Order: sequence, then C-alpha cells, then structure tokens
Amino acid sequence: MQSWNEESLIQHIAEQFPIKAPLVGIGDDCAVIPGEGSWLVTTDALVEGVHFIRDQIPPKDLGYKTVAVSVSDIAAKGGAPKYAFLSIALPKTVERSWIYSVIQGIKEACESWDIHLLGGDTVGSKRDIFLNLILMGSAPKTKTKYRHLAKPTDVICVTGNLGDSGGGLKALQEKTKNAEPLIHAHFHPTPHLKEGQWLTEQEGVHSMMDISDGLDCDLRRMLKSSHVGALVETTRIPLSPSLIHISTENQWDPLELALTGGEDYCLLLTVSADDFPKIRQQYQQHFGVALFDIGRIADPSGKLIYQKNGKPLELHYQNYDHFQ
Amino acid sequence: MQSWNEESLIQHIAEQFPIKAPLVGIGDDCAVIPGEGSWLVTTDALVEGVHFIRDQIPPKDLGYKTVAVSVSDIAAKGGAPKYAFLSIALPKTVERSWIYSVIQGIKEACESWDIHLLGGDTVGSKRDIFLNLILMGSAPKTKTKYRHLAKPTDVICVTGNLGDSGGGLKALQEKTKNAEPLIHAHFHPTPHLKEGQWLTEQEGVHSMMDISDGLDCDLRRMLKSSHVGALVETTRIPLSPSLIHISTENQWDPLELALTGGEDYCLLLTVSADDFPKIRQQYQQHFGVALFDIGRIADPSGKLIYQKNGKPLELHYQNYDHFQ
Repeated sequence: MQSWNEESLIQHIAEQFPIKAPLVGIGDDCAVIPGEGSWLVTTDALVEGVHFIRDQIPPKDLGYKTVAVSVSDIAAKGGAPKYAFLSIALPKTVERSWIYSVIQGIKEACESWDIHLLGGDTVGSKRDIFLNLILMGSAPKTKTKYRHLAKPTDVICVTGNLGDSGGGLKALQEKTKNAEPLIHAHFHPTPHLKEGQWLTEQEGVHSMMDISDGLDCDLRRMLKSSHVGALVETTRIPLSPSLIHISTENQWDPLELALTGGEDYCLLLTVSADDFPKIRQQYQQHFGVALFDIGRIADPSGKLIYQKNGKPLELHYQNYDHFQ
Repeated sequence: MQSWNEESLIQHIAEQFPIKAPLVGIGDDCAVIPGEGSWLVTTDALVEGVHFIRDQIPPKDLGYKTVAVSVSDIAAKGGAPKYAFLSIALPKTVERSWIYSVIQGIKEACESWDIHLLGGDTVGSKRDIFLNLILMGSAPKTKTKYRHLAKPTDVICVTGNLGDSGGGLKALQEKTKNAEPLIHAHFHPTPHLKEGQWLTEQEGVHSMMDISDGLDCDLRRMLKSSHVGALVETTRIPLSPSLIHISTENQWDPLELALTGGEDYCLLLTVSADDFPKIRQQYQQHFGVALFDIGRIADPSGKLIYQKNGKPLELHYQNYDHFQ
C-alpha cells in the first residue's frame, strides 16, 4: 500500500488544478477571488480524534476555535471576515446539549468578529465528528500579502508568543497540573486580525502568513514558496512567562513547543530591512505590544539555519503531521 | 440522552443565526450574497458509511458526485458554478491510488462545468473518510428563484425521472442483479444546470429547488416554507423504463423509490397556472424533453395529499433521515 503525507497530497491536488492569475488558490492561507469587491475564502476542517478529543475540549471552546482558526487565515491576508458556512457531521451518540454548546461557541465567535453564518450542511456520521467551516472575507483595498514574496535580507517577525498552545496540548495529553494558561491558549486562540489588517497596509511588509502548524513547519513553507533560506536566532523567539515556568516545572523543552507545537495563530511576516525600524516602532505605538524580530531571510533557497546566541544549533524535532 | 434529527438541528442553527435581507442563508439550496456581482454559495458534506461505502462506490464516481451534488444546488438557483473548495479528511488506511482516483473524478467534473478548484483543507482522520465541497457560483442576472414562493393553483413540475438513484442504492444494498442503469444513476447523477438557468429566466416560475432527499421530503420543505399545501397525482410522477422493469423483476415499489429514494438531483418547481402551457411548450422545444407536471399547489398550508387517478391515496413510506 502506498501511503502519503499531507504536503504530498496538497502538492498532487495543486498539480491537478492549475490556477491562472489573478486568481490565487491552493497553497496560501486563503484563495483570492478578484473582481468588483474582491473575496478571500478559507476553509478549515476539524476532525474528532485528530484535532480534538470529544471529552477533553469544552464544546463551546470547540465551536469558538472552529471559527477562530479561519479568522486567522483572513488575518494573514489583512482582510475582514464576513460570511461563514458550517458543515457538521455527527454520530447519534452525541448529545443534543453538546452540539448546542458547540453552536453557542460558534455564535459567540461570529458575533465578536461580525461574521454572518449563512449556511452549511448538517449530516450524520457513523463514528467520528467532523466540523468544516468556510469563511469568506472582503479583501483589503491595498495590495494583498502572500507567503511567496520573502526577499533575502528581510527581517523575519512574529506577532506573538509561540508554543503556548502546543504546551496546552502536551499538558492535556500528560495530565499536567497547574497548566491552565497553556490549556486556555490551546482551546481559545486569539487570531491577530487587527494586526494583520494594519501590517497589510505597510509597503515594507513583503510576505505574511499565519502560524498554524508551528513556526518551523510554516516558515519552511514560506521559504520554499519564496525560494529563499533563513537564519533564526532561537533566543529571540518570544515565549510566555507561563510557558517558561510550566516547562521548567515539568522538564519540557519550550523551544521545541515554540517551533513544532502548532496552533499559535499569530502571524509570521518578513519586512524589508530598511523599513523595519519604522514599522516596528509604529506597530509598538499602535498595538502597545512588540513586533518580535527573530531572524533574517537569506540565500540559498530552502535552507533554514537555527542559531543560539549567534552559534549554529542542531535541532532534531519532529514536525507534527496529521497523517502520522 | 436527548436526540434530534437533521431538520430540528438545522432549525436550531437557523434560530441562532438570524439573517437580514437582502442576504439569504440557512434553509435554501444556496446562500445568496448580493452586491456587485452576486454570489451563490453552497456546501455539501459526504461521510463514509452514511453517504457512501468505501468499497462500493468507484472512487472516481465518488469524486464526480461530490461536485455534481453542489452543481445541482447552483442549478436550482439558475446560477453558473465558478469556484470550488474541497476539504478531505482521510485515515491512514486509505491507499494513495484510491484518493488519486477521487481527485481525478473531481477534476473531470470541474472541467465539465468549467469550475476552478481554488483551495480547501487536507487533514487526517482516525477512521472515517469525510469530503466537503464548497461551490461558489455567479447568481443569475434575472431575479433568483427561492423555495418559499409557491402559490395556490401553481402547477408542480419536475424536470426528470425520479427514483432511479434510490433504486440504485437499493440494488447495491440487496446485491440485485442486472440493475446497472439504476446503479449508474446513483453513482453518476446529472444536475439540471442548463434547465435551472433557463427556468430561472421565466417569470411564470414561482419557486424552485433541487430534489436531493426525495420528492416527498423536498416538496414538504417547499410547502412548509411557502405556507401552502399540495395535491400530487402519483400516476403523473415520471419513472424510467429501467426503474419500472427492475422494480417488477424484484417486487419493489417504484413509487416508494420515487418519493423517498432521494439523490435524484433534478429540479422541483411550481409554475403559475396561466403561464404553464407556454412554458411547458417552450421547455420541450428548448431541451427536447418534457417538463413533467405532477400536481397543483393548494390550501391549506402544509398539507400534502397524494392521489392515484384522482382518488386519495394513503401512503406509509418512511423518509430517509441521515441521523436515523
């Protein structure tokens, strides 16, 4: 039996469905449909046993998260979320109160970002629960940012702490005590919507995407599509005090969680070196928090080098693959 | 444990997400997003063990059908399909050749209706296969038809034979021999796209929807949302020679299959009695096939009466509910 992984399957689908400009399709956070009033479209599937455990995540948080992860894709394009479509497949073993709580979480998320749920499909399932959300957003009036336009010498930035969500998942799996802040980050991510909208307006921002599968995996995707390499100074990767504290208590490696944990849903971007000081300062003024610079884009294509205090660092972390 | 069915769950979701005109959302074949270039959006989920059996449907047909059922929703609104987004959740037990065939079927369907696949999500699943397709179509320039505008005295019409797909499913379940035409209809439905586009242009057409869950179920939906009743003459329901022949051979009730089998993917519409003779004639000239009139819209609200040669007919069929 021939097996595959997520990347090779997406690659195959992309080859089968070549897309002509100005449409943008498979391989970025959103599809971009230009025209009178351009649209961004993104879709995310959440599968029981893979993306969530039924008895572990509060159903309201599951509903909220289903919306939040798609809002993060719209954030990466600097757009405004507008219309949602929800498909749910449910086995008979699910209680009505459980699914009503999921819908309540979806409703609260939709209200907080002014999203209108317009439709979907509600079907049965033999065993597993599936949720699929489609989110349409209006595209920004300025030029949309993509992940394939990172340039050598660009400053690599992230908009928030990494690893909290991965730490939360680890805490759930290992039944770690006193890890509530990380578990909250895992169940209740905050997409950087306003930050994405602001950054999209800055000409000096060359490329942007959200971090959903971990910095290591998502930065490699950006490097591959931009045909560049990168140097990342690991001591500059922002970690929350909670992650550092809980990692110390439990002998976890917080860097591993920051690089491979995934589901951070903050933004990864590259900024022209000339414009970076000004953009960093204005970002700090506008949002009251730092834009974290963690490295530089470099030649040659595809190579990602990690450093610790300027010295090369060999890492042997395993990236998470949903098919493994 | 409190259980529910598909209708009650959709009702709950619709109550939680009230939609303001001119948007049209939950409860019709497509959402309608007006604006500069209006959009129709529809989404359909197919779940292993509920909508298909992995070893029973050829994977290429599964891919084709995934697209075709959404095209049928666009047909019911008289639109033109444009952009698709595919979410697939796959367990590791699926062979690469199987999923590549599914993708090939999707590709052939997309090519035949000039649809561009622009994105989606590809994720793992523990056990069941799940496919979800979102289809965006451009809305017709004339006024969109809905299911809630059927009027008393309207003629009730369908655009094709009913029950073949339901018969095909029954043949698969019962391992019936010599039922290939019905099995083909089940695996390879033909949405009535051109017919929907033409009918949408006719002012005399008051309401329209596609038949996906069986004439009985879908007509009841139309009656409920239009606050009307109906009288259906069962001898006028079009049945294919194959269905009649295979039903006779196997002692099946073809009327039960036509009313409750589902997945016919032809159109159900009501036409003003005054305009019907002209529309029927022009339809016949344009498409070379009949527009089948099967009954009349009537008062009071909600009541559906079946007749056989003008005499009331009591039927005790069970409608298919994906949750049962």
